[in-house]
Amino acid sequence: MIQSKLNLRVRYSETDQMGFVYHAHYAQYFEVGRVETLRKAGYSYKLLEEKGIYLPVHSLSIKYHRAAQYDDELTIITNMNQMPSNRIRFDYQVLRGEELLVEGDTTLIFMNSENRAARPPQWFLDHLKPFFKS
Amino acid sequence: MIQSKLNLRVRYSETDQMGFVYHAHYAQYFEVGRVETLRKAGYSYKLLEEKGIYLPVHSLSIKYHRAAQYDDELTIITNMNQMPSNRIRFDYQVLRGEELLVEGDTTLIFMNSENRAARPPQWFLDHLKPFFKS
Amino acid sequence: MIQSKLNLRVRYSETDQMGFVYHAHYAQYFEVGRVETLRKAGYSYKLLEEKGIYLPVHSLSIKYHRAAQYDDELTIITNMNQMPSNRIRFDYQVLRGEELLVEGDTTLIFMNSENRAARPPQWFLDHLKPFFKS
Amino acid sequence: MIQSKLNLRVRYSETDQMGFVYHAHYAQYFEVGRVETLRKAGYSYKLLEEKGIYLPVHSLSIKYHRAAQYDDELTIITNMNQMPSNRIRFDYQVLRGEELLVEGDTTLIFMNSENRAARPPQWFLDHLKPFFKS
Repeated sequence: MIQSKLNLRVRYSETDQMGFVYHAHYAQYFEVGRVETLRKAGYSYKLLEEKGIYLPVHSLSIKYHRAAQYDDELTIITNMNQMPSNRIRFDYQVLRGEELLVEGDTTLIFMNSENRAARPPQWFLDHLKPFFKS
Repeated sequence: MIQSKLNLRVRYSETDQMGFVYHAHYAQYFEVGRVETLRKAGYSYKLLEEKGIYLPVHSLSIKYHRAAQYDDELTIITNMNQMPSNRIRFDYQVLRGEELLVEGDTTLIFMNSENRAARPPQWFLDHLKPFFKS
Repeated sequence: MIQSKLNLRVRYSETDQMGFVYHAHYAQYFEVGRVETLRKAGYSYKLLEEKGIYLPVHSLSIKYHRAAQYDDELTIITNMNQMPSNRIRFDYQVLRGEELLVEGDTTLIFMNSENRAARPPQWFLDHLKPFFKS
Repeated sequence: MIQSKLNLRVRYSETDQMGFVYHAHYAQYFEVGRVETLRKAGYSYKLLEEKGIYLPVHSLSIKYHRAAQYDDELTIITNMNQMPSNRIRFDYQVLRGEELLVEGDTTLIFMNSENRAARPPQWFLDHLKPFFKS
């Protein structure tokens, strides 16, 4: 398993008139989280795209328990629990201190530079294997 | 059941460097869709907030089948299939012409102006009932 | 001169916790306006990009007189007052009914597909000339 | 004068299909910058709002020299060069390493909780004065 933790502060632009973070913006926090997780595994997502590998989101699911507010400092915990197959799944938790605010997950597929579904490149899988040894 | 259909055109600001609509923005299209559905039922969401009723999103789920692109004209179909209880569920389809691009659903809860979970007001339920007669 | 007028409704996602449209989002409304202006002149911006012509923004200026609110129906008036040279300038007004809320302008430059500043293509200039005859 | 410097990394969601940061998002970076500047002066903007003081943007101006890209680490330098009167002006520079990408400025006005223009509170001015002693 690969895990990353990062902190970010809620921007004013991310609030809505209800006075909380607009619900869709957590998907952006998730994105920041999974990019950090890949970086921790030794691969920047930017490098993947430069090699012609894209990871579009195939499904997204979010549960909102409590709402984050402007200027809150949030912790984003991201887990890649399984070795990727044709898909990669990431699980996310958004916390404020010890308090769990939001949970979610995304499944991403591999796409090549002709915008077609593709198998993950072997060098990418080889690189990730050591993190998932039993 | 209450259904709304509306068209919107993808804005440049909604694309990302993959050349498609950034995946989180469909949650905004869904929001436009459910506001239109409430309006069709005779209630603007704006009016609800003015009466102290807020509808924060409690869960969100999206499946991405095909990607929308800049300047595409999309159709957002939103269904409220069940009479609301303490929650309201909306189901969404995003189409480009006849082609289904994205599906999703959201569950919303009722919140009062002190930011606490609340029961839906009776006048709101009374108003919706005729749409769900069997 | 070329002018376009279009209406759009403020989305919930575009508000911030002050209860108004977040100030940066007017730049997106401007973008919708200038795309409509080009379309009225017979060229979709999408087509320009497909021909390898990009129009990145070189400068942006906005004056905020009054704030738009959620669900407001706004009118975006966009003017191209001068024949483009190496740059294109657009001027914008955002109104709610008769009331002027926001004014602004952008200057865009021409860029080719290698991301370098370029001269506007002759066919593009030829196409626009009739709109600016004295 | 009060100055703040902060670093932030470009998010994928902030790019557009041109492959660069969407131009309007710099206004959000500016906002992060001025909040940090106020914090450095000893006032969180959040606290100001809790005291009923709002600072809506009255004018915004941006010049784009070079484009930032996904995953770039940017430095936002924000200057408050003058003691606020009825308005506060901030000047911004966005750099990638030593390279100046974008410059801009905003003027903000003071607004009270009834959404009316207001004079800045004396305690706020008293607090800032020491930073602008000649």
